Amino acid sequence: MALPSESLDALVEGILRGESVSIAHALARVEDSRPQALAGQRALLARLEAETPSAHTVVGLTGAPGVGKSSLASALIRHWLSDGRGVGMVAVDPTSRRTGGALLGDRARLRFPPNERVFVRSMATHDQLGGLAPATRAAVVVLRAAFDWTLVETVGVGQSEVDVETVADSVVLVLQPGSGDTLQFMKAGILEIPDVLVVHKWDLGAAAERTRADLESILAIAAKTSQGWSPPVLGVSAQTGKAVAELAGTLREHRAYLDRSKELSQRHQASRVSWALELFTLRYGTLGLERLGGRGATERLAAEIGGTALDAFSELATRAGLAS
Amino acid sequence: MALPSESLDALVEGILRGESVSIAHALARVEDSRPQALAGQRALLARLEAETPSAHTVVGLTGAPGVGKSSLASALIRHWLSDGRGVGMVAVDPTSRRTGGALLGDRARLRFPPNERVFVRSMATHDQLGGLAPATRAAVVVLRAAFDWTLVETVGVGQSEVDVETVADSVVLVLQPGSGDTLQFMKAGILEIPDVLVVHKWDLGAAAERTRADLESILAIAAKTSQGWSPPVLGVSAQTGKAVAELAGTLREHRAYLDRSKELSQRHQASRVSWALELFTLRYGTLGLERLGGRGATERLAAEIGGTALDAFSELATRAGLAS
Repeated sequence: MALPSESLDALVEGILRGESVSIAHALARVEDSRPQALAGQRALLARLEAETPSAHTVVGLTGAPGVGKSSLASALIRHWLSDGRGVGMVAVDPTSRRTGGALLGDRARLRFPPNERVFVRSMATHDQLGGLAPATRAAVVVLRAAFDWTLVETVGVGQSEVDVETVADSVVLVLQPGSGDTLQFMKAGILEIPDVLVVHKWDLGAAAERTRADLESILAIAAKTSQGWSPPVLGVSAQTGKAVAELAGTLREHRAYLDRSKELSQRHQASRVSWALELFTLRYGTLGLERLGGRGATERLAAEIGGTALDAFSELATRAGLAS
Repeated sequence: MALPSESLDALVEGILRGESVSIAHALARVEDSRPQALAGQRALLARLEAETPSAHTVVGLTGAPGVGKSSLASALIRHWLSDGRGVGMVAVDPTSRRTGGALLGDRARLRFPPNERVFVRSMATHDQLGGLAPATRAAVVVLRAAFDWTLVETVGVGQSEVDVETVADSVVLVLQPGSGDTLQFMKAGILEIPDVLVVHKWDLGAAAERTRADLESILAIAAKTSQGWSPPVLGVSAQTGKAVAELAGTLREHRAYLDRSKELSQRHQASRVSWALELFTLRYGTLGLERLGGRGATERLAAEIGGTALDAFSELATRAGLAS
């Protein structure tokens, strides 16, 4: 069911002011996967997308387990807060099929004083998709409406590493010195994705410098060579705080580049389409895709349909004769 | 469409004799994802499951990228061949979303003389499932019918690492000395899965011994404590050949344990159910699951239905009123 419009107004205004209570309420709503929740979610997301300050930016943080993404995120968040910015964070955790539920082990260090303008939410990956939890995309819309910067941290254990590109304006790939991951990432097509590469644990010295050299030699081949932006490689240490401010500066520059080029709107459109397709495939399977003439045709259809990703999803369901 | 029964007989007999031509033909058939291919696949898989020699065993080989799974697989295959055994292998590769297609880079070393009783097939992971390619399970049935040992190697970049448990009789987790993966694997619930742990690149010496010590201290907590089998930790080197025969012996012991205990039939039933559910969810999405009362109810239904996983899938589709 949809909210009565005056309470929707109140909710949206609370989120835009960055109030934790409103944000938590909105996140609970968008995480509701029951079909009857869709109408209310559509109204909420449409309002949020329309009213989100255009300067707000989503940063994806990805990399293999153990490279220190959480401590880097923590350092980055503290930098933004000290700079007077509000920060939201979505941490995507793998789900242990045995234990069930997300693994929040690393999140302990992501605690901030209640008076700070920061909101951290942990979400579990969705087995069936292997990538981002479906609600993750919606949570990003909520947090982006509330804060200058929204971080999306994906634990690098699979598809989520690739999918982060479809929710973030800027993708930061974190690597560990001497991990030998570099070649594997290149082979898996992951080095094609980041806008910024971070060699973390820079305090490790020589190995870190070697890793950076590796990367710069590889980037010429593997990196996304989008018009006018070549991914810089930064040596950062959350431990010592080295180059955290430099990373924040690079993210500002990348955002400025996105505004100059046509890329930001392209990314938002691609994100809208992949989200709609993800919802549609999760709900109606390949049967749904067939009804609309296959994945390619469904993707083109989603791109033509206006409105939010949820609007496109609903329209696709109707056109497939499967709306429920 | 189904094969005429006499040509089905010929195909099945060819597979049971381990003939490459018949195996390749069967793999092509089971990889056909068009709905109209289902009937023929059902007939073929039912025949193969009924006629597979009961001693044939499927071994899952998993672990993070770069730990040397392919070279270990190669060493194990050579050992089995020299022992007069026939060997099939399915190598599950991640798909690069940009480049498309499976990444066959590591497969070069998996070449064997044409006169040997070995068949290696590379398959791509399926984005939407994130885990095993749907056709992988069917390919395993084909190869298991043909050979004494079938290896399933999954590149450890996500869900496939967990899913391998649902196709293999024995799961081997390969770790690299000093990789620090151990804790991450434990957190992701992956150490709950293996029946045998291998510390590979044993030639690395001290670091390898440390890794084994780590593992043995952790296993008490994390390992699958199934009745009567506690996962051994072996130090192996494909490079020097160290302990490859010992690994093969351990796999024989585990198979003997599975026969003694009720576990083998339990595993095959669980595998049948998860395969049917995977196919059903891929084709009909959460809509299909809802029609049958949710995932749990659908799982119980699949378990009650007899026959192969494909039979169960078809019956589920019919009961959901979605058969197509």
